[in-house]
Amino acid sequence: MKKARIEELIVVHRDGLLEDTVPFWMAHNMDRECGGFFNYLDADGSVFCTDKPVWVLCRFTWLMAVLYNTVEKKQEWLDTAAHGIDFIEKHCFDTDGRMFFTVTRDGRPLRKRRYLYTEMFGVMAFSEYSLAVGDEKRLKKARELYRLLLNHWKNPGLLPPKVYPETRQAKAHSMSMGLLSTSQQMRRTGEDPQYEEVIDEVIKEVFGHFVHRDEKALFETVGPKGERLDGPVGRCINPGHAIETLWFIMEEGRRRGDRDLVEQACEVMDWSLEWGWDTEYGGLLYFVDCEGKPCEQYEHDMKLWWPHNEALYACLLAHYLTGEKKYEKWYEKLQDWS
Amino acid sequence: MKKARIEELIVVHRDGLLEDTVPFWMAHNMDRECGGFFNYLDADGSVFCTDKPVWVLCRFTWLMAVLYNTVEKKQEWLDTAAHGIDFIEKHCFDTDGRMFFTVTRDGRPLRKRRYLYTEMFGVMAFSEYSLAVGDEKRLKKARELYRLLLNHWKNPGLLPPKVYPETRQAKAHSMSMGLLSTSQQMRRTGEDPQYEEVIDEVIKEVFGHFVHRDEKALFETVGPKGERLDGPVGRCINPGHAIETLWFIMEEGRRRGDRDLVEQACEVMDWSLEWGWDTEYGGLLYFVDCEGKPCEQYEHDMKLWWPHNEALYACLLAHYLTGEKKYEKWYEKLQDWS
Repeated sequence: MKKARIEELIVVHRDGLLEDTVPFWMAHNMDRECGGFFNYLDADGSVFCTDKPVWVLCRFTWLMAVLYNTVEKKQEWLDTAAHGIDFIEKHCFDTDGRMFFTVTRDGRPLRKRRYLYTEMFGVMAFSEYSLAVGDEKRLKKARELYRLLLNHWKNPGLLPPKVYPETRQAKAHSMSMGLLSTSQQMRRTGEDPQYEEVIDEVIKEVFGHFVHRDEKALFETVGPKGERLDGPVGRCINPGHAIETLWFIMEEGRRRGDRDLVEQACEVMDWSLEWGWDTEYGGLLYFVDCEGKPCEQYEHDMKLWWPHNEALYACLLAHYLTGEKKYEKWYEKLQDWS
Repeated sequence: MKKARIEELIVVHRDGLLEDTVPFWMAHNMDRECGGFFNYLDADGSVFCTDKPVWVLCRFTWLMAVLYNTVEKKQEWLDTAAHGIDFIEKHCFDTDGRMFFTVTRDGRPLRKRRYLYTEMFGVMAFSEYSLAVGDEKRLKKARELYRLLLNHWKNPGLLPPKVYPETRQAKAHSMSMGLLSTSQQMRRTGEDPQYEEVIDEVIKEVFGHFVHRDEKALFETVGPKGERLDGPVGRCINPGHAIETLWFIMEEGRRRGDRDLVEQACEVMDWSLEWGWDTEYGGLLYFVDCEGKPCEQYEHDMKLWWPHNEALYACLLAHYLTGEKKYEKWYEKLQDWS
């Protein structure tokens, strides 16, 4: 990529984040009365629902902490992270150590779900915040949540299943993705062989179970041993999700200086971009059926913002790590459409 | 409406149903090997998933029975209804009397949900089939399911709630709608004052709790006493759903010769059509926020087939019952767009 273009893109992405996105949210999402953050903001910043999804409370807290830790020691960012952590600690944990999925504005529980994604974002928030303030108590909480994730990963029967397991067993790619990302995040708080082991095992699971080379696809849902499942669920590819996991793996390859790992991830990303790209109108589709049969989801052919974000970052990273021109081309095509 | 147009529409709707829709499904959905019906048919009739949603098993069985009972005594329709009932009886009931939500091709349970819509369609199927064959055993099953519905309606705490009831209580319009329709259906098997009582109570609930005159809206979800809830859930109007309930009520008015009831329903239908109609592109929107704020559902501004079916029938019925020209106009606008 030409140097002038790199300079241009730094302005687009860095300034876009720090001078547009972050200030917009900080100006409107802070709940000074009840604590925590509002999530449902309209384009003018007005709040159209005061319920608080715990995913987002954790993610915004993580964002504030990671900006503080990696960009600049701005007091405002640290204070905002603390504001988030306080609310999460006070209101978002059930008595069994699991977290709620949504709470009311004043922190009363609305929903708890049979998925562990809230807890994954809990690991992110508590671990990054503990780094910002050197706080052992918050690090302990992150470790507890991380152990809870591992325990459920190893014992998938602990939560009530959606589908009767006697009839059909399946596993979702998002569990591997979440463990990969939370293990990488936990490693920021200090080395531990356990993190490497989990990362190794998860990467093996991704390439061994979720990636099917014969179909050139990373599937969202497979059988317990990676069996290709039948029906819309078994045929479903979520290109944005796949690309997200793949750049987590590329980052791992970069850290380890493992060129093979990077190339393995890049190859699957090539397929995922091809699956996702809408050759008629451009943009990445949300879901694709690998046999071209109808998808179940109404929203399957919508273009959501986040798959494009994942893909933009993944293509820049792939280009940086491999120097291959094709990732620059993909990046520009995606950026142009976005 | 002009007589010539009526003749034309009879051809569109009657022949469309009996010579196109029904033959297509009967040609492709019958599972002669495992029993029951396939649901996931592609446009060429091929099966793209063999799982069997119990809603649809019941609805198709009901359709076959009601065609046999009301259109023509075709043996094929009766046999197909029997084929459905057999599978449902053998494979779709849990040991607690409730029904599964989805089963595999060979009838093993996949999912059971915390909603009672499957059981509502069970009432439809068993009661209509019992009429076709004069079968006491199947009528008994319909009555059992109907009692189960009433019991849960009166005791909403019997099923695990989606939202913590200590924090927020809400009720869905679809429960009233389903009870209205199943009571009307049960009445086809014989009069019983209980059916009238439930219908009266449900209509009172619709107009007293779900309809808010000040906002000219029939809401999908309200508080236990009809309180207008805040947030996207509380502001959500589902025009197709509202119109469906309203034509059930018009049918009740027609049967009782209750002109006031018909007019009450028509007024709310007028509002619902206005809420739903997309003045820019035409067609009925799936969900609408009554304050014009963003909807939560990705699919909110999609145009689904079924709200148009409900509205087409409702407008013809309203025109027939009131003679009002505006319903002919709405009908033609909807028909043209559809």
